[in-house]
Amino acid sequence: MRILDIREISVPLRSSMRNAVFDFSEMTTSVVAVLTDLRRNNQPVIGFSFNSTGRYACGDVMRKRMIPRLCEADPQSLQDPVTGLLDPAAALACMMKREKPAGHTERSIAVGTIELAIWDALAKAQDLPLHVVLANRYNGGRYLDKVPCYVGGGWYAPGKGLEHLEGEIRQRLDEGYTTMKIKVGGASLSEDIARLETAIKVLGSSERLAVDANAGLDRNRSWEYAKALSPYGLRWFEEATDPLDFKLMSELAGEYPHALATGENLFSTQDVRNLLLYGGLRAGQDILQVDIPQSYGIVQFTKTLNVLQEHSWSKHQIFPHAGNLMTLSAVAGFGLGGCEAYPGVFGPFAGFTDDAKIEDGMLSISQRPGVGFEGQNALFEIMCKIF
Amino acid sequence: MRILDIREISVPLRSSMRNAVFDFSEMTTSVVAVLTDLRRNNQPVIGFSFNSTGRYACGDVMRKRMIPRLCEADPQSLQDPVTGLLDPAAALACMMKREKPAGHTERSIAVGTIELAIWDALAKAQDLPLHVVLANRYNGGRYLDKVPCYVGGGWYAPGKGLEHLEGEIRQRLDEGYTTMKIKVGGASLSEDIARLETAIKVLGSSERLAVDANAGLDRNRSWEYAKALSPYGLRWFEEATDPLDFKLMSELAGEYPHALATGENLFSTQDVRNLLLYGGLRAGQDILQVDIPQSYGIVQFTKTLNVLQEHSWSKHQIFPHAGNLMTLSAVAGFGLGGCEAYPGVFGPFAGFTDDAKIEDGMLSISQRPGVGFEGQNALFEIMCKIF
Repeated sequence: MRILDIREISVPLRSSMRNAVFDFSEMTTSVVAVLTDLRRNNQPVIGFSFNSTGRYACGDVMRKRMIPRLCEADPQSLQDPVTGLLDPAAALACMMKREKPAGHTERSIAVGTIELAIWDALAKAQDLPLHVVLANRYNGGRYLDKVPCYVGGGWYAPGKGLEHLEGEIRQRLDEGYTTMKIKVGGASLSEDIARLETAIKVLGSSERLAVDANAGLDRNRSWEYAKALSPYGLRWFEEATDPLDFKLMSELAGEYPHALATGENLFSTQDVRNLLLYGGLRAGQDILQVDIPQSYGIVQFTKTLNVLQEHSWSKHQIFPHAGNLMTLSAVAGFGLGGCEAYPGVFGPFAGFTDDAKIEDGMLSISQRPGVGFEGQNALFEIMCKIF
Repeated sequence: MRILDIREISVPLRSSMRNAVFDFSEMTTSVVAVLTDLRRNNQPVIGFSFNSTGRYACGDVMRKRMIPRLCEADPQSLQDPVTGLLDPAAALACMMKREKPAGHTERSIAVGTIELAIWDALAKAQDLPLHVVLANRYNGGRYLDKVPCYVGGGWYAPGKGLEHLEGEIRQRLDEGYTTMKIKVGGASLSEDIARLETAIKVLGSSERLAVDANAGLDRNRSWEYAKALSPYGLRWFEEATDPLDFKLMSELAGEYPHALATGENLFSTQDVRNLLLYGGLRAGQDILQVDIPQSYGIVQFTKTLNVLQEHSWSKHQIFPHAGNLMTLSAVAGFGLGGCEAYPGVFGPFAGFTDDAKIEDGMLSISQRPGVGFEGQNALFEIMCKIF
């Protein structure tokens, strides 16, 4: 199995959403296709991916460095010697040639997005869903049939009042979600507390509500929010600090009695290790949310899993960032804690297959070969334009 | 003073150099020009910069996000209200709009390179060398007339033996340098020790030799090198660990009796803060080597300086990464410890003005307005092609 060509297109997101620190009006996403020499059902096997949520398109890094390295490599050097199929670990090593240590985010998103597309191609070559391939390789064949899935929302918008928030949450409950995450930190503390109390009332339990400050609070406000949120017993309090401020995180973890969550803005295994060493998080309680395609992909994620294990973390404490099919495949294949959903928020770049069902907070998994993008029509239409 | 246009070109480095972890054969550099509406001597005032050493060109990030944000901003919002000149702090804030927290390196190099070009334009508008502008603004008007400058070398090359290393060092001494840094970790420990002993013999003192492992040693080899180097009393031992492995750095600092150096691969103030909190470095002894254009530029560097001060570090312990005029201006203007030189290694992207003199390890400073690129002909020729 050989890579014949890799292409990238950058697609604007056109989202009007806003959280505590930034809006998405300029956001773009890299969509990637890896064309291979294999054929299946008279069609070439093509692996697809995109660069997840919240980081800009990175096609230039792909085109200037990662794609030439892969396309100019000896094809055998990228193959599993036993199966002759593409070896994602070899592809990762090839892409990392001539890359300086650290400075991860300058390339981790480009590398991870291409790596995910290679996994999609590899799973299609085996005619298996990606979560089954991952389960077979890394999890003793065990995968989740249904995945716990919470829904994100509660974004800020001009004129959006408590009654709108209440309506939004009721709609999500009607759709089959049971747990919801809303934004905090983009309004005054008292307004946010009113929003939170509204949300708890509609959801029926504070354990069904998580809140997300998107790293937008300064030290004083972090503490204010941690103290104010403490009595509520929320599912979790997400990104209460700057993502790299392990000291403040550790101080908060010493006081805040319920789960803290972070990790979507850590892009390397070493950053996660530092979070575990210095962030004071509690192995049985707190939540890690790395974004797999943005942090070098699945092979690197297995190394992050090893580090978590060394620190006595259970993989059930991992809720990877970004509500998309790539994340869902990883959650199901590795048996992680669960995933998030952002229906309707990031256009075609959020959500799952069109036939996916959410019932009682559990999301059904596509049994299509690969990641399953072929079952997500609006997104797959974009992907089909690449070749 | 307004920005009329900003342009970037990517230039291949064509260097055959190799350190312990990677070679520079694919390396490119972004060269930036900021065109302003001011005129001086009948010429438009244009600020120039490039993205320092060792990280790839990043023009796509500039063109897609940073340049449009600056060029579409209300010009008054980028001006110092008192002088009407460009305000680099305002430019930094403008470029950081709609940027997600952390994930620094994805944009810190693009932002910092443009910020440096704005400083070049600002200093030219005042008809002052940049180091004088920096001294006036940040250092009570005090700047260095001459800057301590060591020379980097001792790269690995096929067939390069001890006699070549000896010749290389003699040449540098003849040129006026007194202190040299050579690579380690790209050969066996015994070969490296032989290289080091050769270098000390030629330099006349181990205090005149620093060594650089370029973060290429694993944990075991870090320890082997730290133990083997301990007796020599070198000027410093650089990047003995992964740049983000603060735990190993802290363990080494507890045992290695002489100066350790690191920082060229930390790109945010928060990463430096974590290094100081967890890396075990010793305020009066160890060396910090951030790369200013690669880590958001000079305004952000002043915040890093504040963090260093909070941790009782002297600015004399800072030897910023990269031997170029931008670094030299910062070292002279802030009164930092010194700078490095890599004559002939990175083509036109290393070195200082053509009339710069190195005598007894001290480098003379250009008195040209701005950074002084106009005095570095091979580089300035490239810059002149932008507009």
